[in-house]
Order: sequence, then structure tokens, then C-alpha cells
Amino acid sequence: MSDREAILFANTAFYAAFSGRDYAAMETLWASEGDVGCVHPGWPPLKGRKAVLASWKNILGNEASPQVSARDAVVLYEGATTIVLCLEIVAEREGAHPQVLSATNVFVKEGSVWKIAHHHAGVANVDVRSLGDEEKPVVN
Amino acid sequence: MSDREAILFANTAFYAAFSGRDYAAMETLWASEGDVGCVHPGWPPLKGRKAVLASWKNILGNEASPQVSARDAVVLYEGATTIVLCLEIVAEREGAHPQVLSATNVFVKEGSVWKIAHHHAGVANVDVRSLGDEEKPVVN
Repeated sequence: MSDREAILFANTAFYAAFSGRDYAAMETLWASEGDVGCVHPGWPPLKGRKAVLASWKNILGNEASPQVSARDAVVLYEGATTIVLCLEIVAEREGAHPQVLSATNVFVKEGSVWKIAHHHAGVANVDVRSLGDEEKPVVN
Repeated sequence: MSDREAILFANTAFYAAFSGRDYAAMETLWASEGDVGCVHPGWPPLKGRKAVLASWKNILGNEASPQVSARDAVVLYEGATTIVLCLEIVAEREGAHPQVLSATNVFVKEGSVWKIAHHHAGVANVDVRSLGDEEKPVVN
């Protein structure tokens, strides 16, 4: 598996843990050898592993937390620190159209494993119906 | 000047170019040796220098573009690629309170100069009146 494939796999694993409300998985996916950061939609920035993981424990422990999937992922600045940009599709609930968010995910390599070091997501004014059907990553 | 000081200086220069509607400065501040990305508030991700700079040319050419200043900047993952998290204060207009946004800014070193490689900003539900008066960066 190339680094690029491994990074996109880590990005997919992040959303699987999110949608699966799997805090144990989420905890292992975050970097532990340096600072981490997180900006949830509408939140001020969180800094440090303790604050970031506490936020995820709270979110994933909430049965109303949304089902989120990623699409159109692209890799920027492949290197020791790599950025993935993608759209997040927040699953339809109560008849409402799915919401689309923009996400920045930063990955760092710890040993042989890519870990997430920073996540920033916010609302994108994109109509989900304007997006194609393909869910596979578009790698630039 | 340490790398950390130089990175925070580059972050300040970015907001000076933004508030000064100085496209020529903005153009030189962005990385040119690799991919760049940008997520403006409410936008889908932009990828590549051409799309990113076109968006800034449009924003900075608009006399209604907001005056934005940064505060509470912290440096994450200082290294070849470094992340700055900060709050953005969008200046008061027409009697409305200033709006607060969360920003992720990623910097890379090209030669001896730190350049911005990725910017992501979005609304933070923070009342500006809840913030202290200090505007100086808080370096962790």
C-alpha cells in the first residue's frame, strides 16, 4: 500500500469510527506523539489530545450524533504531514436532505501508521443533489 | 527569529493582507512549490493555487470584504509543515457585534520563508464579548 493509499485509508477509518460511534477506535486513530487539534462545526478550536478526545467521547456517546460519510477526498502536501480535503455528507434525518460539510484532515506518520493530527469541519453551502453519485475518493 | 516566531509572523502577514485587501501581498504569501487548499466559510474546498488565488482576488477586490484580525494563535506540530489555530474577529459593521470564526492555517517552509499552504475558516459560536481584551498571540 502506498503512503497515499494509507492516508486515504486512515481518512476512511476516521469516518467509520465517527459513524460507528466507536470511541475506542477513534482514540487509536488520533496522533499521540505531538499536539493535536480539532474544530467541530460552529466550535472554537480545541487544542491538545485531552480536550480533543473528550469532545469525541461526548459526541460519540450521544445517540443523536450524526452518521457522517466522506467523499471527494484529495491529498495535499503528501509528506511527513499530509492534508486531506473532503466533503462530509451528514446522513438524512427526519425527511431533511443530507447536509454537506467541508473538512480538512491533517495526518502525521507515527512509526509506520498514519494518525490524524487535526480535524476541521464546517458547513458548506452545497446542495447534496448537485453532487454526483460516485462515493469513491477522487485522488488528485 | 525562531521558526515559531516566523510562522506566527506569516500568520499575521496573512491577516494583514486580508484586511488590507492587498492581493499582491496575498499572492506572495501562498506556497508555490506544492498543492495548496482553501476552505472559505460556507464554501466547499478549493484545491490548487489557481483556484485558491482566484478566490482571494475576488474577495480582496470586493470593497465589502470584511476586516479580519486574528487572535489566540497557537502552533501545532511545529516542523516542515506546521499548523496554526486561531480565532478570527470579523470587524463590527452597521452596529452588529463582531463575528468570531475558527481558523486552521497550515504553513510550509519554502527556502527560508514560511508560506501558507492551506486555510480553513468557519463560524464559531463564540460571543466576542466573552473573549479577553488581549490581542497578542498565545503561544503554547
